[in-house]
Amino acid sequence: MGEPTAFRCVSCGETFDPWAVEYTCPSCGPLKGTLEVLYDYRALARRLTPKTFAETQQHSLWRYEELLPVGREHAVNLRAGYTPLYACRTLAIELGLRGLWIKDDSLNPTASYKDRATAITTGAARKLGRAACSCASTGNAATSLAGFCASAGMPCFIFVPGTAPRPKLAQLKAFGAVVFAVDGTYDQAFDLCAEASTKFDWFNRSAAVNPMNVEGKKTGALELWEQLRGELPDYVVVSVGDGSVIAGLCKGFQELVEIELADRMPAVFGVQAEGAPAVAHAFTRHTQGQPIVPAEEPAQTLADSISVGHPRDVVKAVRYVADTGGGFVTVSDAEIAESGQELARRVGVFAEPAAAASYAGLLRLLDAGDVPPDARVAVFITGSGLKDPESMLHGLPAPTKIPPELEALEEHLDL
Amino acid sequence: MGEPTAFRCVSCGETFDPWAVEYTCPSCGPLKGTLEVLYDYRALARRLTPKTFAETQQHSLWRYEELLPVGREHAVNLRAGYTPLYACRTLAIELGLRGLWIKDDSLNPTASYKDRATAITTGAARKLGRAACSCASTGNAATSLAGFCASAGMPCFIFVPGTAPRPKLAQLKAFGAVVFAVDGTYDQAFDLCAEASTKFDWFNRSAAVNPMNVEGKKTGALELWEQLRGELPDYVVVSVGDGSVIAGLCKGFQELVEIELADRMPAVFGVQAEGAPAVAHAFTRHTQGQPIVPAEEPAQTLADSISVGHPRDVVKAVRYVADTGGGFVTVSDAEIAESGQELARRVGVFAEPAAAASYAGLLRLLDAGDVPPDARVAVFITGSGLKDPESMLHGLPAPTKIPPELEALEEHLDL
Repeated sequence: MGEPTAFRCVSCGETFDPWAVEYTCPSCGPLKGTLEVLYDYRALARRLTPKTFAETQQHSLWRYEELLPVGREHAVNLRAGYTPLYACRTLAIELGLRGLWIKDDSLNPTASYKDRATAITTGAARKLGRAACSCASTGNAATSLAGFCASAGMPCFIFVPGTAPRPKLAQLKAFGAVVFAVDGTYDQAFDLCAEASTKFDWFNRSAAVNPMNVEGKKTGALELWEQLRGELPDYVVVSVGDGSVIAGLCKGFQELVEIELADRMPAVFGVQAEGAPAVAHAFTRHTQGQPIVPAEEPAQTLADSISVGHPRDVVKAVRYVADTGGGFVTVSDAEIAESGQELARRVGVFAEPAAAASYAGLLRLLDAGDVPPDARVAVFITGSGLKDPESMLHGLPAPTKIPPELEALEEHLDL
Repeated sequence: MGEPTAFRCVSCGETFDPWAVEYTCPSCGPLKGTLEVLYDYRALARRLTPKTFAETQQHSLWRYEELLPVGREHAVNLRAGYTPLYACRTLAIELGLRGLWIKDDSLNPTASYKDRATAITTGAARKLGRAACSCASTGNAATSLAGFCASAGMPCFIFVPGTAPRPKLAQLKAFGAVVFAVDGTYDQAFDLCAEASTKFDWFNRSAAVNPMNVEGKKTGALELWEQLRGELPDYVVVSVGDGSVIAGLCKGFQELVEIELADRMPAVFGVQAEGAPAVAHAFTRHTQGQPIVPAEEPAQTLADSISVGHPRDVVKAVRYVADTGGGFVTVSDAEIAESGQELARRVGVFAEPAAAASYAGLLRLLDAGDVPPDARVAVFITGSGLKDPESMLHGLPAPTKIPPELEALEEHLDL
């Protein structure tokens, strides 16, 4: 594994011995003081080659063990990562792109990108000898933690607001997690989870506060690099809620450059719902020289996984995206729904609304000229449409009812 | 690719030139006359080694191209197969087994084992130059075909009875398939699909009648063999509806023996719902020297994907299972629901009821002594619980509602 050399506060830059501080910088607090895990990149650059990862013969994100803070001897027995990347040639031509790739991360164990974070976080919990894990989440992160804890035989305490879609709660309950529906806001659930985790020594996987999450989430970037045989695209587009997924992707690309396996980063663009644009607005403020936090806005969108009013990883998300030369874009719920249908109809990938938002964002970026024609673009799909199927069906035709006769069928066929 | 040498009727044994007959034996008809795809196994035995498949560097079922009737140049751009296999050590010890593996085939592109069949069938449709595909299905097969046709840009015509769960219909509609809800039985939908496919030259993927399906489904056996490094388990357990999945698995094991990569087959056991036991009963009749068909019984179970009253691949399923020394077992809906919860809670795999039935079957087989203690067993999970989440939740506790205060939480914790 890759030994971390330090944990560093993303805001004040203070460094701590690895694991000496588990969550956030004591000086900067849980929102500004998220930690970055650092490695000895010069040593890694000398040691790692383009073939290092394949040589592990690991068909999961543990193939990147050399760049992870936890060794695979602590891995929970579910396959996170190693998701397919689809080259969409016809669609690329139609959009005027030189290349378009869809990375289907709904094919993770609990059907979302969050499994990448959870794999590392639960591995770290084992490494640190913790007896239980906890999480506050709108849905996917909680489900993911519950699944991995089930596999590990580790108790799991989940704090949800009352608004998560039923299939997500169904998974949670089936995985045997202890679920508390907190009568309050997501923020209140988040704070209660943190408080309880400290008191009961649970390892808290809640977004942003645990630096292990971004370590797992960066593996999507490493996989993309490997699947494209070292030829990174010009642009990467992904949906943004709390900001941890995009922060992870950016860190992955940055580390590829640091260890000299890539010579540049793609420009990474985040997509938010118009009704929940807190990170996008924080980015705009940052480009105007204003502080990134507080970032707190109303959150109202059909894309529940990115319906976040008070994003927790906003500092990393904004800084890292700026470093890549990328940016943010917002899309309407109508665009999200239409994009979800287009992804299913054209690519055969059934995404949840929050995940389809990334594709809607690409269309916006093309319209605005922020992504030029002839670019090479990768779009991450971060969750399965089966998590929230009803949201994707608006406006689709119902099945045609016919009696069981060929003549009746022919009347309805337009051949 | 592996050039088929003949298509052979499973009942009368008549052989046809490959592709000369596409569906079923003209003499024996669509139910008895399902076709088997044959290869030159002696030539393959000389050519193939345990490393052949890895050397393809294909991370999908196309790594088994040498044993498939279609070359990967016809492959549709979705990753079927290459699903994870989980060694469940604690659970194995509790059950008194020497080894227990869960093969999670819910991590296929449309979240079911059916994607294996569809990958080959849509590849064959392309090879044969067909402009469209069709299917009658209770759900997963139709969804799978719709997804692959979407990716391939190929029209897709689906015939469903009115009873499929909403998430399955949601996927179908999102994938852009033309869906006919046939006002009649599954059999009537099935027959109408066959009739229309002939008339309009659609490639018909309906269960059993298209021999390409079993060619795809056999790859689950090949993967299991490869993931266990050539050490096949003693027993394999899988749920059975129409009988095609189990027929495919058996054919895969048989071919491994034919090409001398395995020295014996595992005993393959099929699991049916007590309320839909047509194949299990046909197997019993077969062991008593009676004819396998007609096999037609009532079908009433919460496990919709195996709620099949008139199984279409019953001849292959019964004969192939008998050849492995395996058998059939039936389980109640209560056992299915409990097993689904246990799989989620203990293994971290969220299965649809029809898939969880396989684990319920294993417990029955252990109770009955049909699988002895100290055996090595693999259980296939053939579809995702997200396809039908409500069915898996019976009896699970609702989340505990609390105000956002630590004191309230402590009152509800039993630490």
